[in-house]
Amino acid sequence: MDEKKKEKARKLSRRDFIKATGSATALAGVAASGILMGPGQADAAEPPKKWDDETDVVVVGSGFAGMAAAIEASEAGASVVVLEKMRTYGGNSIINGGVMAVAGSDLQEQKGIQDSPDLMLEDMMKAGLYMNHPELAGMVAYQSRDAYNWCKDHLGVKFAGMLHMGGHTVARSCPTSIYSGSEIVNKEMAKLKELGVKVSTGTYLEKLFQGKDGRVIGVQVREGYKFPDEKSGTVRTIKAKKAVVMASGGFSNDVAFRMIQDPKLIAKVESTNQPGATAEALKEALRIGATPVQISWIQLGPWASPDEKGFGIGPHFATGAVFTYGIMVDPDTGKRFISELADRKIRADAIIRTGHPAIGIADDEGAHKAGGPPGLLEKVLDRGVVKKYDSLEALAKDHNIPFAALKESVDKYNSYLEAGTDKEFGRYLQKDAKPMVKAPFYAMRLWPKAHHTMGGIQINKNAEVIGLDEKPVAGLFAAGEVAGGVHGAVRLGSVAVVDCLVFGRIAGKNAAAQKPWA
Amino acid sequence: MDEKKKEKARKLSRRDFIKATGSATALAGVAASGILMGPGQADAAEPPKKWDDETDVVVVGSGFAGMAAAIEASEAGASVVVLEKMRTYGGNSIINGGVMAVAGSDLQEQKGIQDSPDLMLEDMMKAGLYMNHPELAGMVAYQSRDAYNWCKDHLGVKFAGMLHMGGHTVARSCPTSIYSGSEIVNKEMAKLKELGVKVSTGTYLEKLFQGKDGRVIGVQVREGYKFPDEKSGTVRTIKAKKAVVMASGGFSNDVAFRMIQDPKLIAKVESTNQPGATAEALKEALRIGATPVQISWIQLGPWASPDEKGFGIGPHFATGAVFTYGIMVDPDTGKRFISELADRKIRADAIIRTGHPAIGIADDEGAHKAGGPPGLLEKVLDRGVVKKYDSLEALAKDHNIPFAALKESVDKYNSYLEAGTDKEFGRYLQKDAKPMVKAPFYAMRLWPKAHHTMGGIQINKNAEVIGLDEKPVAGLFAAGEVAGGVHGAVRLGSVAVVDCLVFGRIAGKNAAAQKPWA
Repeated sequence: MDEKKKEKARKLSRRDFIKATGSATALAGVAASGILMGPGQADAAEPPKKWDDETDVVVVGSGFAGMAAAIEASEAGASVVVLEKMRTYGGNSIINGGVMAVAGSDLQEQKGIQDSPDLMLEDMMKAGLYMNHPELAGMVAYQSRDAYNWCKDHLGVKFAGMLHMGGHTVARSCPTSIYSGSEIVNKEMAKLKELGVKVSTGTYLEKLFQGKDGRVIGVQVREGYKFPDEKSGTVRTIKAKKAVVMASGGFSNDVAFRMIQDPKLIAKVESTNQPGATAEALKEALRIGATPVQISWIQLGPWASPDEKGFGIGPHFATGAVFTYGIMVDPDTGKRFISELADRKIRADAIIRTGHPAIGIADDEGAHKAGGPPGLLEKVLDRGVVKKYDSLEALAKDHNIPFAALKESVDKYNSYLEAGTDKEFGRYLQKDAKPMVKAPFYAMRLWPKAHHTMGGIQINKNAEVIGLDEKPVAGLFAAGEVAGGVHGAVRLGSVAVVDCLVFGRIAGKNAAAQKPWA
Repeated sequence: MDEKKKEKARKLSRRDFIKATGSATALAGVAASGILMGPGQADAAEPPKKWDDETDVVVVGSGFAGMAAAIEASEAGASVVVLEKMRTYGGNSIINGGVMAVAGSDLQEQKGIQDSPDLMLEDMMKAGLYMNHPELAGMVAYQSRDAYNWCKDHLGVKFAGMLHMGGHTVARSCPTSIYSGSEIVNKEMAKLKELGVKVSTGTYLEKLFQGKDGRVIGVQVREGYKFPDEKSGTVRTIKAKKAVVMASGGFSNDVAFRMIQDPKLIAKVESTNQPGATAEALKEALRIGATPVQISWIQLGPWASPDEKGFGIGPHFATGAVFTYGIMVDPDTGKRFISELADRKIRADAIIRTGHPAIGIADDEGAHKAGGPPGLLEKVLDRGVVKKYDSLEALAKDHNIPFAALKESVDKYNSYLEAGTDKEFGRYLQKDAKPMVKAPFYAMRLWPKAHHTMGGIQINKNAEVIGLDEKPVAGLFAAGEVAGGVHGAVRLGSVAVVDCLVFGRIAGKNAAAQKPWA
């Protein structure tokens, strides 16, 4: 089912529940008719007597983490198959912004920036509201430099420049030369080709098989699968003699599962992710007893535009112009309603609760200070993500904002700049900010998109998946967004890439080191 | 294992992981030695050929929810057994404060208080950061009056008075005559005796059994179980011909499971709950495929005292005197560090991050305005929860607070009262607050305790447990703290009791209405 259909089905079934509510007879009828069929071990995957295929290590997912795992496992001598449900490889990583946080890179050294893994860890923990699993966050911080050097030296990834991103104490975020995760994914793919590892696209993980002792021993897949049709493709089984590595990503695009974890995240809340960022593989791991960790912590980007698909380019304007040199108002009232620099979560929640996009506003001065990629202002105007107006009044009219109220909001903000303090929302005011008076004025609609799912299944420092009995599930590893705990409540920008690479590599190495069960 | 031992074991195993980290050989060795054994269906419960016992409905847990379910199921004609793992009945409910939020009670009518289920729902959603499952929160709000009347008229529960509690728009919280949940639990117990329903104490739920179609068909228990020894007691099986109702409560006292969900909640963070508030039954439901909902949302009480066990009486003083008419400081600095009226979660997190108890301070004026139960000030002094000093200096000396800094904090706070605004933390200042100048001064140590676990397994309006396939798990119902979604991110005070009663009754009715499978 696609997301719309899923959402519709969900609503229908909820309506059905309402019909049944309180009516014992109706409920009994439902039970008798056999509709009440849940999951569970009785239903569960019986391992096949004969497998269609076999390999040492099965990797589920072909993003940063899956590819890194496959490379390490292959280089350690294991035979490896990578499964990718979508028609093309790269998962969400290939559309990722490609910026990687590294503590102690050569680029930092060149610029004389003092940094340390401990400082990076502290930044991660602070952003994560200290809900991070410290040993996992610590692995990422301490191995970030190694992962970066591996990308550069082993894969030939090109990095350029050094960014100081929000929440990081120092500049440590290294963008790839093309500001895209594809630079890393494509180099990983090239390495896999060199190693002779097959990335089997259009191949959907349907089941994890376990042996009598609980060890994961293989998978059932659908080859020739066409997302999102669960029944498409041909069923095949693959024996995993050493291990299965789950690197299946997050679920920012799975409306039904998202809404179980946070009912605010209705279909109207889009995602910056690729369509395949759904929860099937995560749920399969939970079904066999993986421990859920912080699954309800879903990061929304308050900087997203409803007027473009995915992440887009609007966020650069929102962050660089609106939230730093402009204001954000509710078009119904013309008033500001939250600090434009509050925590991502707080801002996003506040916008969603109004029920409609907020309007971000910058004057000519602010718009030209936005920074970001070259030619940003022209691009956002070209794509219709930002609109330009000769006057504040014209802007108000076009967006149906009561002008007098909007004018008052701008005047108040200007007076706060003068006073040096935001008396309404306590927002940090930029030292170089000037009163918003200079036409033309620019407006951008702001409507949050689901961006990253912090939670997932529990892993330990070895990337072993931890079961409900607090022990590792033999033969099962996980890395990247499907695993929970690294980021805690809130993931810091540019830490996703390094998380995936660090734990992908650990998972691949450890998977290859397992004794084969057969 | 008791909590201390569990915690110790957890730390040891974490240390073990460190030893193994990165060492492929070590890991392979672990696998070969067979230690890597996870949970999963292969390991799972095979239903017995012959059952030791049978009944229509098995209820797991004997708190508000479990007892309510048992009463309704029995009155609907089902045979019922209630399992309680502890030696005495009542779960955490019996030590609960016994205050119940009701929209539209007779007491509100008598006082002319305008209220409605919709207003109560809105209050619940706001506190829950709109993460509540609206249809579940709605059931509680809409059936609150019915549940209250059922307590009064059907069970003979005595209510007295009407409280306006934090986060509620109007006064709607009805305390039982003795300000204790035992008033309700004991009346529920009396009703069960009248109905001839057995509450089997010392009986631990070890396994849920499922039939081939996934339906829950019975349980394995340990009779004569001695908490927390998992291997104590005698194994027996009970066929549940109609259904099993999970009413096993929260896990505020399960340090290991808490720390997976929020690593800040180390053993040093105690709980207001009874020792048996642990996660075994919740994990058993997850093992058979129940969907986890918001499990990482754990409520801490910032008003708790480390100088008494459980909830105690200190919270009344903290809430009534310190947070309203006094200040809270970090003893290391002598400074305030958070608004004393910030969200429970924010305050508790802030205290925990300092690594030691905060000191709450009130002067004579504030201490006598605390309200709460009669004779509160005498009681907290008697029990050593609050201490009294002739001067602020003596207080500072006794608690190792730098006096000059403390004096400055008090002076600043006094100046904010005069100015009408808290320039440091934006705290709401009481209109009748007076400057803190009047000796004697009172000090209370504040160290948060885990109080309520908002998350749990997913249910729908019928109290059916929802599986990972988004369908009800046949034969399985849940109610009360083990279920997630009713309260969202933060539970409002006095809504736990009514949640348990509303969903306990629904679960019991619907369980009894199932067609027997055998």
